[in-house]
Amino acid sequence: MAAGARFSNPTELVDAALAGDRLALARILTAVENRTPVAEAALRRLYPMAGKAHLVGITGPPGSGKSTLVAAMIGAVRAAGRPVAVVAVDPSSPITGGALLGDRVRMQAYTSDRDVFIRSMAARGHAGGLAPTSMAAAAVLDAVGFDLILVETVGTGQSEVEVAAAADTTVVLEAPEMGDEVQAIKAGLLEVADIVVVNKGDRPGAARTASQLRAMLVAVGRVGVRSTGHARPAPGAAGGAARPRPKEPEVMVTTATTGAGVPELLEALDRHRARGRDAGDSPARLARAEAQVWAILADRLRADLHEPANRAATDATMREVAAHRLDPFSAAERLLAELR
Amino acid sequence: MAAGARFSNPTELVDAALAGDRLALARILTAVENRTPVAEAALRRLYPMAGKAHLVGITGPPGSGKSTLVAAMIGAVRAAGRPVAVVAVDPSSPITGGALLGDRVRMQAYTSDRDVFIRSMAARGHAGGLAPTSMAAAAVLDAVGFDLILVETVGTGQSEVEVAAAADTTVVLEAPEMGDEVQAIKAGLLEVADIVVVNKGDRPGAARTASQLRAMLVAVGRVGVRSTGHARPAPGAAGGAARPRPKEPEVMVTTATTGAGVPELLEALDRHRARGRDAGDSPARLARAEAQVWAILADRLRADLHEPANRAATDATMREVAAHRLDPFSAAERLLAELR
Repeated sequence: MAAGARFSNPTELVDAALAGDRLALARILTAVENRTPVAEAALRRLYPMAGKAHLVGITGPPGSGKSTLVAAMIGAVRAAGRPVAVVAVDPSSPITGGALLGDRVRMQAYTSDRDVFIRSMAARGHAGGLAPTSMAAAAVLDAVGFDLILVETVGTGQSEVEVAAAADTTVVLEAPEMGDEVQAIKAGLLEVADIVVVNKGDRPGAARTASQLRAMLVAVGRVGVRSTGHARPAPGAAGGAARPRPKEPEVMVTTATTGAGVPELLEALDRHRARGRDAGDSPARLARAEAQVWAILADRLRADLHEPANRAATDATMREVAAHRLDPFSAAERLLAELR
Repeated sequence: MAAGARFSNPTELVDAALAGDRLALARILTAVENRTPVAEAALRRLYPMAGKAHLVGITGPPGSGKSTLVAAMIGAVRAAGRPVAVVAVDPSSPITGGALLGDRVRMQAYTSDRDVFIRSMAARGHAGGLAPTSMAAAAVLDAVGFDLILVETVGTGQSEVEVAAAADTTVVLEAPEMGDEVQAIKAGLLEVADIVVVNKGDRPGAARTASQLRAMLVAVGRVGVRSTGHARPAPGAAGGAARPRPKEPEVMVTTATTGAGVPELLEALDRHRARGRDAGDSPARLARAEAQVWAILADRLRADLHEPANRAATDATMREVAAHRLDPFSAAERLLAELR
């Protein structure tokens, strides 16, 4: 590729990205997505430069208008003169290739604006996990100077909700009259919300939906649906990223198609940011750190077990488990013994 | 709990489950979901007894009628005198608490039938990952004698699609006229389908949807949308569970509400099962084995790092990463050095 020839090594690539080269930035993000050695080299240098940006997760059921709201938020942020980056992990997002032509056109309006950077990420196929990959991508965007980073995910997947929940501020989107089917999805999402937005505010029932959501927030008490008393979650597990938020969330109404309510949403984001600002080791930031470190540890373990000296034994063990001649716990013990 | 008193240790619990005690079975599955020591003890014994069942994954976008189809499949399987177990990992499933009253009533019709066992699993909060947990649950159901196990997941989440894709046979459900928004979801799901079902066959456009899907299958060529050439997926990663299927899938039409097409679907499942039957180390079975073993290895690593001797150092390292004073790669290296 011609683009490849411009950067002969990761150092040059990172230098260029830090100097504002958007192509270099895009190449680093591709490396991060594919977990290549270039990604490791780039992150070792860029990660310590990050930590300043406000990371905002935006999630909600399909049909709640996430992408349209993100487009409206970009417009409002740019109108205020601030740069903004978007990571879209949403199969129905116009950015990732689906959906509504109108949104796509709206997004394209920003392709010539250097202070808007939009990156789509495939929702599947992340060997190391969607959350660690998205968080590493956000760290890169943070390091090169984006002070506001929006991460959009669909709100109907474990990994996807975790990504949004691991942000500094998590916005959960709902829309009026979405049918019974999304009630359960809604309840689950409310657990991780810092701000709840009823979008499509021009539709009948928006105000009613907002008051219903306030009632649901009281009802769920921000406590998980499951409370068996038997739970012993693994310490530091990635699942920890989705732990319920301590504070009562604000409920707001927007109409993304007209922009109504969007400035107020941005103000609410700033208020939330200001509140959590003191906590450099906030639960969300700790969860992000843990998710990334665990993913790297798991990668290392896998790589060790697939080194030439171990590979045949590892494959043979996995085949025995697949054939149910060996249970997975004994297999894990055998593999660990191999490494020692 | 009164139920707890009946089984003084895991051996008794497993004995009871193997003897057909459904309460004991339910308790083992709860332990599996929470990854307790009881789960480990039970799986060490039960896993080698499993491997005989036909594991069928059923996934599709919200609104495609998955739960109604599962209910209809249960009816048809029971009419043929065969036992069946269902694992439902779907926030919009009537089993897991959402959705349509009609379906819930239909499901309750089976609560007195000993040869139907329905288990709902929360879609979030699985520290060890949704796929390994679901696969372990399926192994337990397999070991206690269920020969057909249906795993229902919503088709709009990375983890959820992986669960369905790791089954022996993966059924992807679509419905006519679902709107543009699910087009991208559809394309992603077709990659993992062994059988594509157009449900709601009584709606106008069902035949057209079926022929469109056949055309999409040609278009996607069963090859991933992303093909960057840079990919270096970690060997044996859980993501491997969602690798594309080699064979061209059948496209069928059902009307779950009336049962039309459901017997034909069951025949297609049997045909697919017969084709893959020889392969005890089929890609799907290997992917399931790997997902479970990796989850256990990751658990062990986490447990080691949180032992009293290591805990303070681990927590301090994570806080440094959260504050961006340390990059996650250096943190991982430091933690591994601690363990040696």
